[in-house]
Amino acid sequence: MERIEIPPDIVIRRLPLYARSLRYLLDEGIQFVSSQELGERINVTASQIRKDLSFFGEFGKQGIGYDVAKLLTHIEHILGLSQDWPMVLVGVGHLGQAIVHYEGFYTKGVKLVAIFDNDPAKLGQHIGEFPVLSQEHISPVVQTHSVKMAIVAVPAPQAQSVTDSLVEAGVRAILCYAPVILQVPDGIYVRYIDPITALHSMTYYLAREEERENQEERA
Amino acid sequence: MERIEIPPDIVIRRLPLYARSLRYLLDEGIQFVSSQELGERINVTASQIRKDLSFFGEFGKQGIGYDVAKLLTHIEHILGLSQDWPMVLVGVGHLGQAIVHYEGFYTKGVKLVAIFDNDPAKLGQHIGEFPVLSQEHISPVVQTHSVKMAIVAVPAPQAQSVTDSLVEAGVRAILCYAPVILQVPDGIYVRYIDPITALHSMTYYLAREEERENQEERA
Repeated sequence: MERIEIPPDIVIRRLPLYARSLRYLLDEGIQFVSSQELGERINVTASQIRKDLSFFGEFGKQGIGYDVAKLLTHIEHILGLSQDWPMVLVGVGHLGQAIVHYEGFYTKGVKLVAIFDNDPAKLGQHIGEFPVLSQEHISPVVQTHSVKMAIVAVPAPQAQSVTDSLVEAGVRAILCYAPVILQVPDGIYVRYIDPITALHSMTYYLAREEERENQEERA
Repeated sequence: MERIEIPPDIVIRRLPLYARSLRYLLDEGIQFVSSQELGERINVTASQIRKDLSFFGEFGKQGIGYDVAKLLTHIEHILGLSQDWPMVLVGVGHLGQAIVHYEGFYTKGVKLVAIFDNDPAKLGQHIGEFPVLSQEHISPVVQTHSVKMAIVAVPAPQAQSVTDSLVEAGVRAILCYAPVILQVPDGIYVRYIDPITALHSMTYYLAREEERENQEERA
């Protein structure tokens, strides 16, 4: 059997976007989509989509395009979304509360099972359906539910120690909202949600434009 | 004069990470840093850092490394952070409220000036220091304060129309928290904050590992 090339991480990061776009198409009742049409919806070129998907097999049909429902099922399977991954959240300040209420977290694939905070005023309170548990309970809860995923939404100074507890308990994948760079052992996956760096990468372009405009005025 | 090559967007996206890391170093009282040390803190190779910075000039000194304060000032200047960019927020549900309270948004470079929502129950209320304004006021506020940046934190079905209003009013850069792909005219910058796609790109790896473990058990 021919050995399939390992897809680079950047491809894996685009697959969830394809899946989301296909879900929208399905909701709109669209049965087939070309790589061109799919690409236009998510600002990716048609050839990029074809190249990305080729890592995982043959999906489209010449002249017809992709069967939306089938391709979605395939991608969800590739992404491991045929099952629900239990997940915990640490930190229920304003941000953590927004996360608990964010309907996106109740979609396919991930399932919040417990929330933690160390603020004594919050312990025992409910956020949505979840009682706020003390961080001492991270380890037993993670082990009982075989939790592999966690969201870290504590302030920056606490993010590393919370991460250490999660990893020690058995968590393998962390989504971090704190503006830090976490140190984790090999084989632990970390993604960051970072609005400030996203904003600061746009001010670059705005500043360049302003410079150009000023130069044109002076010219 | 030699023409400087235009840095690719991926380089621009890394600069804010360098800046953040340099700020931490400065807080720790560290005066000089090698590209090696800086790289280890942010999981970027030393050669990548040197290559990225070479787009903007010569910064490091052989054997001494980078002057932390000077390099930070340079990068902040490159990113347009020597000035404050006024910014508006549309949508003050749980997420928008977390954004208003997020101290990160009061750092250098961006400055929240107004918040908007269309929920009649919220109008006139204060979130932090900001009164919630009706979305009808987007255009006059954006024009009065020369606002070029906005955060969109409304539910997905409203994100495109809010974006249209913002762009029409003069906003050029949008940070979008809604799980959609916005359609914007050329020359408008959009970045997405998207926890679900980040999570789903990690389930891929967890699922692969589980597969491997199951195969090993069967073998």
